[in-house]
Amino acid sequence: MAEEFHGYAAYDKESSLKPYSYIPKPLGDEDIEVEISHCGICGSDLHTMRSGWRPTLYPGHEIVGNVLKKGSKVVSFNIGDRVGISCQVHSCGECVECTAGYDQLCAKKVFTYNDMWKDAEGVPTKYQAQGGYANKIRAHSGFVFHIPEEISSAEACPLLCAGLSTFAPLKRHKVGPGNKVGVAGVGGLGHLAIQWAAKMGAEVTAISHSSEKRDEAIKLGATHFLNILDPNDVKKFTHSQDIILSTSCNPNTDWSKYMNFIKNHGTLILIGLPEAPLQIPVFAFMRFVKVEGSLIGGRQEIKDMLAFAVKHNVRPWIQKVPMKDVNEGIKIVLNGKARYRVVLEN
Amino acid sequence: MAEEFHGYAAYDKESSLKPYSYIPKPLGDEDIEVEISHCGICGSDLHTMRSGWRPTLYPGHEIVGNVLKKGSKVVSFNIGDRVGISCQVHSCGECVECTAGYDQLCAKKVFTYNDMWKDAEGVPTKYQAQGGYANKIRAHSGFVFHIPEEISSAEACPLLCAGLSTFAPLKRHKVGPGNKVGVAGVGGLGHLAIQWAAKMGAEVTAISHSSEKRDEAIKLGATHFLNILDPNDVKKFTHSQDIILSTSCNPNTDWSKYMNFIKNHGTLILIGLPEAPLQIPVFAFMRFVKVEGSLIGGRQEIKDMLAFAVKHNVRPWIQKVPMKDVNEGIKIVLNGKARYRVVLEN
Repeated sequence: MAEEFHGYAAYDKESSLKPYSYIPKPLGDEDIEVEISHCGICGSDLHTMRSGWRPTLYPGHEIVGNVLKKGSKVVSFNIGDRVGISCQVHSCGECVECTAGYDQLCAKKVFTYNDMWKDAEGVPTKYQAQGGYANKIRAHSGFVFHIPEEISSAEACPLLCAGLSTFAPLKRHKVGPGNKVGVAGVGGLGHLAIQWAAKMGAEVTAISHSSEKRDEAIKLGATHFLNILDPNDVKKFTHSQDIILSTSCNPNTDWSKYMNFIKNHGTLILIGLPEAPLQIPVFAFMRFVKVEGSLIGGRQEIKDMLAFAVKHNVRPWIQKVPMKDVNEGIKIVLNGKARYRVVLEN
Repeated sequence: MAEEFHGYAAYDKESSLKPYSYIPKPLGDEDIEVEISHCGICGSDLHTMRSGWRPTLYPGHEIVGNVLKKGSKVVSFNIGDRVGISCQVHSCGECVECTAGYDQLCAKKVFTYNDMWKDAEGVPTKYQAQGGYANKIRAHSGFVFHIPEEISSAEACPLLCAGLSTFAPLKRHKVGPGNKVGVAGVGGLGHLAIQWAAKMGAEVTAISHSSEKRDEAIKLGATHFLNILDPNDVKKFTHSQDIILSTSCNPNTDWSKYMNFIKNHGTLILIGLPEAPLQIPVFAFMRFVKVEGSLIGGRQEIKDMLAFAVKHNVRPWIQKVPMKDVNEGIKIVLNGKARYRVVLEN
């Protein structure tokens, strides 16, 4: 009888997660099976669960554990190695996107959950990709990463999605000394973005809707704090930032205000995914301000991010919850009480 | 008694233009006075008139004529030279924007109309900048351009705004062979954008809401025609373009469709200025598609544009109307009957 993996799945939009088992994809020559020790709860897990796209779904794409089995062609990992898995478990490795480092845009990619494993032609198989709210997971070895010994397993988890999603666009923009970077939203994403940008040498402004998080933002490395509801702050920071990284998922975000904080020729980078469309008056673009998106990062960016985290001592602020209490963990995140990431522990 | 200039001014939002006279700014050492022979009617003239921002206003910023007077320090122009003036009559020439070639973002800039002349400190004077629906105009010699003899005066006019606004972003993006460029809107701006992009070597797709303009778009240099209301076209052109230059001023523009025509990592450039805000679902950005604005061009770009027009035989399609019939000319543009630009002739 085929082996089953066990975890916690969303059956519909409203209910709590419930125990669930599934038969994983067969372990391929280049695949790795990981025994999961920790998995972070990401805002997009909640978003996906609430959207109810699939009848059953294990969420979780901030996964750390140990190598339990490996395919015959896997040479760079040994049984027992401590490893991480991010938002993606496969890509073709050959297309124009993969070769340019944008594995996440590969047409044959397989996301860590809410996706189907595909065959060599990119045609979906019967095996669903299931995430890390579980005891085990299988992934292509190209999307399994050694966790540096300086980083604890629990702290490594949020780096694998929240950390990557904020690190990659800043690195792509070659952020460094002399740059002014605004981070809109001091939360799960923002508290890492502030650290990256500060450690890259930028002058960081944390942007929030209340002054409640001022002290924590400064502690994280921000030089300035901009309360978007304070007219004096709004005036003071007009046309001041080279880049604003928006981590906001608030559908009522006032994008015009963000645009107004950006210098001529600057860039608004969208990381958060509000459900309401972006609304910006066209004249706000006329100062040669750009708006662009970003989506997680490629595998080289994951390696670069982990190395940078070690070198510059960047860590998420986390709280741990036992995996069996997954619904308690989700409640903390849903209620906006996480400071700043919740990590499930087996 | 100070000399008066005569032209046609908008007194309110609704009425026709009426004859009007004003006392121009004194001719400075570096200024040039031009006797206007031609002035194009630009969509933004109508927009400005309808907005009723100022009680009296000469519109017109696509101006061609002859040098009538010049200040004592002007050496590169002679009396009688045939010259053009675009959307701007002054900038400081020293700030970070001016030195980078973005004269149009200079804090001390003076637009050709709907603006006030400023003193050396950038403080507005009592002299209003008035446009080219007139007999004469004064401008700083840095914003007066020799018109190449190959280009007729009437045809030169639309190049000075519509031509510049479409040429500059394509040149900035180094459009050339191997690029696929979509031009959304086949009108006053679009009919020039198609020509520039095609002559730069790009494969051009004209994007329109009806197939009525298909033949003209192909004649202008487009290889493909995309009817945005044809589901087959929408499917065929999905993720196909490196750049889309949107000349649309339609407040009901479906920006999601435009985004969908753009390749991963591509760019939507906004040239037209719809009054309604841009609305785009955030997920449309996640393929690393960017949105950026553009605003006319700097003085070096004007010179480059005129040289390119001569070399590659790019000309606007125009119809001429006597200056005294300015209200007839405006009616043609307002009713969308211009094919594709109307030029007033003294």
